[in-house]
Amino acid sequence: MQTLTVDLNERTYPIHIGTALLTRPELILPHLARKQVAIVTNTTVAPLYLDALSKPLAAEGVDIVPIILPDGEEYKNSETLNLVYDALLTHHCERKTTLIALGGGVIGDLTGFAAATYLRGVPFIQIPTTLLAQVDSSVGGKTGINHPLGKNMVGAFYQPKLVLADTSTLDTLDDRQLSAGLAEVIKYGLIRDLPFFEWLEQNMPALLTRDPDALAYAIKRSCENKAEVVIADEHEGGVRALLNLGHTFGHAIEAGMGYGNWLHGEAVGAGTMLAASLSQRLGWISEAEVSRIRALFERARLPVSAPDLGVDAYLEHMAIDKKVENGRMRFVLLKAIGAAVITADVTEQTLRETLRETAQHV
Amino acid sequence: MQTLTVDLNERTYPIHIGTALLTRPELILPHLARKQVAIVTNTTVAPLYLDALSKPLAAEGVDIVPIILPDGEEYKNSETLNLVYDALLTHHCERKTTLIALGGGVIGDLTGFAAATYLRGVPFIQIPTTLLAQVDSSVGGKTGINHPLGKNMVGAFYQPKLVLADTSTLDTLDDRQLSAGLAEVIKYGLIRDLPFFEWLEQNMPALLTRDPDALAYAIKRSCENKAEVVIADEHEGGVRALLNLGHTFGHAIEAGMGYGNWLHGEAVGAGTMLAASLSQRLGWISEAEVSRIRALFERARLPVSAPDLGVDAYLEHMAIDKKVENGRMRFVLLKAIGAAVITADVTEQTLRETLRETAQHV
Repeated sequence: MQTLTVDLNERTYPIHIGTALLTRPELILPHLARKQVAIVTNTTVAPLYLDALSKPLAAEGVDIVPIILPDGEEYKNSETLNLVYDALLTHHCERKTTLIALGGGVIGDLTGFAAATYLRGVPFIQIPTTLLAQVDSSVGGKTGINHPLGKNMVGAFYQPKLVLADTSTLDTLDDRQLSAGLAEVIKYGLIRDLPFFEWLEQNMPALLTRDPDALAYAIKRSCENKAEVVIADEHEGGVRALLNLGHTFGHAIEAGMGYGNWLHGEAVGAGTMLAASLSQRLGWISEAEVSRIRALFERARLPVSAPDLGVDAYLEHMAIDKKVENGRMRFVLLKAIGAAVITADVTEQTLRETLRETAQHV
Repeated sequence: MQTLTVDLNERTYPIHIGTALLTRPELILPHLARKQVAIVTNTTVAPLYLDALSKPLAAEGVDIVPIILPDGEEYKNSETLNLVYDALLTHHCERKTTLIALGGGVIGDLTGFAAATYLRGVPFIQIPTTLLAQVDSSVGGKTGINHPLGKNMVGAFYQPKLVLADTSTLDTLDDRQLSAGLAEVIKYGLIRDLPFFEWLEQNMPALLTRDPDALAYAIKRSCENKAEVVIADEHEGGVRALLNLGHTFGHAIEAGMGYGNWLHGEAVGAGTMLAASLSQRLGWISEAEVSRIRALFERARLPVSAPDLGVDAYLEHMAIDKKVENGRMRFVLLKAIGAAVITADVTEQTLRETLRETAQHV
């Protein structure tokens, strides 16, 4: 087991990374304010891991309230959030009850937001069971739900007490979900870590066969990169926006195709290729660099072409994105592989050209 | 105009107290991140004060999104909150858009929670228009909404950038609302400020006739007392619970009688008399002190008798209150006028006796 500490003063917490962590209650017990937890999970993950997590905790005298939600991005909404509140209130959960999120990004975001807002805040622990959630939601404290008019429009910054990234849970992940997680892993290399990008070029086969050591290294480097950025900018005023490489386009793809049809990581992959094309159009990176990026995404079995929503649909979905400031769009683009920048130097015309030419080749 | 600073490090903010502050945009402009505000108010307050606030701001070039909600505690819920999110998204409000709460406690709590959670947090300004909101919600950063199973069960701690306590707005407050605010004012004297309690005994007639200087003094002393407690304990781990004198009983009264039938301040007044009776039953204060407290509440035209909900109904409503810890109830009781304490030294039998005997005399 490896441990990484996310240093946020009084909100500092550890991330443990390794195999079979789920079944080790001694990792969880020191972080409980009292011996009561509500485990929030979904109908897919519960049959796989709920007992493995619950039974050893129950054997240590922990009172467990299981809350099993329907599975899917389309349930990351206020109705499902209310199901969590209802269960917590019905079971008289108190301020010292810890919420445990057992599942992927949807469960983590929704449970984190429930923890941030139930009784104005209760402790919570993340046990992400997808690669995407392990490398993305483990660090940063972003929690929230979707709104019919936009993704993640309602939420809070709220830090967990502990994250367990158990690589054994990735054995049951389907290939498409694994690849979606790799999109975010590649992103860390692209924005700030050329050596990691090169490591990924070498080790993609090991990651695709779920080699535990390769996965643990990729998760650790991803979390380290994200933690360094987040610590510098906890509430996303500045450099943290670099983490959104591919996300403005990606959110537009998800919204345009209907939430749940493209996986978040898939949309980020295709969105990152749009950002790379836009960077090339500005003369910042070469065609060879774009091809090298495309090749790594392809080897990770990710889509590299954005869907043809139509240019206006893209612009409409991007305009209500949170990265708008004073009415002017900011983009995260590449100056090189391993060096992303935040820029407002994109004219609407250049953006339209990129969207038209890149999306028409699908 | 008097100004009090609530010192919470990087979240420090001023409270301005005085007459006709609403119409002075120069007090607001320095706190706006950009010149766009969403003013959240209700159908009662909007006709009285929305134009007075909006027009001078608009004249300074501020873009204004008015959001007018139905009036009443029964609308402090997730449906109304969604109306606010819908309006913010429809008008493309961004991270630097400031939310202004113009109204009483319901508007302040709900708007504050919308600000805490919209795009994971946007700035907000409080302009409380009731005495209760001026002395209670101005300090402490408590925001939230009710849930069918309990009051204020969903919320966040979130600080405003600025509070304007405009005593001119109290001219349109009905007598019952004024008295409800005085219940919280008296509470500050009771828990930690005997000289203020004595000042209130002297100046109750001036407060009831809405003398601006008397009101400003009472608001300032109340906010100072609350700020001292809150600064020592921002997230309600310890001494902050003293502010809940009368509130555990009060919440039970509100819930038992149906939200909206008793005003919050009225329920706190009657709840405080229950707390005083329980304190006397424990031998901590004398019958003369209970009478002195009752006399001040009566002069403030507040109910001093708790409704006879039945002992079991009281216990049931109190058990899901947030002040439960490890299954054991904590109470805020009086050791003297001006000296409240937090205690777990109340047996269920003593509690039942107090509820039975105090409530049966209604």
